[in-house]
Amino acid sequence: MRGLADHPGARNLNDDCAVIEIGSETLVLTHDMMSEGIHFLAGQDAADVAWKLVTVNISDLAAKGAKPVGMLLGYMLGANDARFLSGLEEALHHYDVPLLGGDTIAGQGAQTMGLTAIGKATHCPVPSRGGAQVGDSAYVTGPVGAAMLGFEALKQGKGDSAAYRRPVALMKEGIALCPHVTAMMDISDGLLLDAFRLATASNVTLAIDRGDVPIATPENRRDDAMRWGDDYQLLFTAPADVALPVTAHHIGQVIARSSSPVLLDGYALRGTQDLGYQH
Amino acid sequence: MRGLADHPGARNLNDDCAVIEIGSETLVLTHDMMSEGIHFLAGQDAADVAWKLVTVNISDLAAKGAKPVGMLLGYMLGANDARFLSGLEEALHHYDVPLLGGDTIAGQGAQTMGLTAIGKATHCPVPSRGGAQVGDSAYVTGPVGAAMLGFEALKQGKGDSAAYRRPVALMKEGIALCPHVTAMMDISDGLLLDAFRLATASNVTLAIDRGDVPIATPENRRDDAMRWGDDYQLLFTAPADVALPVTAHHIGQVIARSSSPVLLDGYALRGTQDLGYQH
Repeated sequence: MRGLADHPGARNLNDDCAVIEIGSETLVLTHDMMSEGIHFLAGQDAADVAWKLVTVNISDLAAKGAKPVGMLLGYMLGANDARFLSGLEEALHHYDVPLLGGDTIAGQGAQTMGLTAIGKATHCPVPSRGGAQVGDSAYVTGPVGAAMLGFEALKQGKGDSAAYRRPVALMKEGIALCPHVTAMMDISDGLLLDAFRLATASNVTLAIDRGDVPIATPENRRDDAMRWGDDYQLLFTAPADVALPVTAHHIGQVIARSSSPVLLDGYALRGTQDLGYQH
Repeated sequence: MRGLADHPGARNLNDDCAVIEIGSETLVLTHDMMSEGIHFLAGQDAADVAWKLVTVNISDLAAKGAKPVGMLLGYMLGANDARFLSGLEEALHHYDVPLLGGDTIAGQGAQTMGLTAIGKATHCPVPSRGGAQVGDSAYVTGPVGAAMLGFEALKQGKGDSAAYRRPVALMKEGIALCPHVTAMMDISDGLLLDAFRLATASNVTLAIDRGDVPIATPENRRDDAMRWGDDYQLLFTAPADVALPVTAHHIGQVIARSSSPVLLDGYALRGTQDLGYQH
């Protein structure tokens, strides 16, 4: 919905958090929506769906170094509300964040739900995806591809699907990193696509060393792992000489804008088929 | 979803706003969701749907005397996104509130959308529905039943449907009233049902004089008008001797809890069939 994202003040729609000043505090706000058949499988355990809905929103705050203050839920009643509630409570407890309110509705067709997370910035300026500087190093907090393997296990009904069903937002890591980074975002839609977005927003190129990207998969799935989302690792850039407070993997360098926002071993990536999951 | 509304910290779910302290400011947060076939007619002009989505959320803030700071949209793409955007921009302009961000998703089946509104309290304590005191007078800001007539006009394809399609949240009135009221809420689900909720939250009874309730309908539709929602008038209680800054209609008295939270001309109302729209 291009028109909407172009709306004045809505530049962050779909991809990012809103940052507003309230008195002496800086608030970070995000809203993510999920719908059956698109963001979760029909028949998937509603407790896992609730867990993920909380996690994706907390992950957005984490990338801003924001401490969660509370959440508002918009929930279409479905077939497994008790399971949803159980997973919701588990996640709220895990991230130590209260549910402040929201709305439940009856609905028809695919079950849809949304969550708004409100956080307090712990460091200003709040990191954006637009701050990467030529000469910075690029990092990722951990391996990608785990959620992909989990998704395949869930679909096949065998193997460990936890990484897909129960991803964990890196809240503490995001808060620890934010004073040190020049740009940061969570990898929700795949490393390469999100790197493309970060580089585009920063008007630079990320030159990624393919072999340095940590993967949770066998080597023959490396290309898939870099394109699959849902891992919620943090992608960030920082001056090359900064000592990081969190273990992270160096995956490349920030260079002046080249033929593409992302070079992978020097090869310019273009178009969606090269990048990852767009939704 | 009883379990969810009983969640610690989620006492306000479905019906009210969340109130949180941020530094020296008090924020009021609300989230309302709408789904095709439930909250709007399939095929209804998407611009009207967007207008209403903004209005219902602003109306929740108005009942708290909160000045809107911004909104986050969760939007499932549909058949008329351009019209939705047009109505959204119209409403944001009308209420002078920015769209800060949100999420758009693909979806299947009934189109569903949610909006989070963030407001700053203009007066503390923020009015709740739980503060009505025995001896207070009960008021409504204006006539009920206009949206019902508008809905009927829209369904029949003739007559003026604007009151249903384009309700207006009483933002300025809510802000002006909030220092003077003991309890306040917007009438979104029908005067009698919302009076029942206010009285229940306040542990009092509202003794309503049926003939004093202002209605936008012919007299023979009075009972329907008091049970239909979507008018977004404000229902409030205030000490009987308070001079109100806004024109309002005296509709009854707050008395000690009687046989029902609402007496209508002395008749105790019970159960949903007596009250209004539950959704």
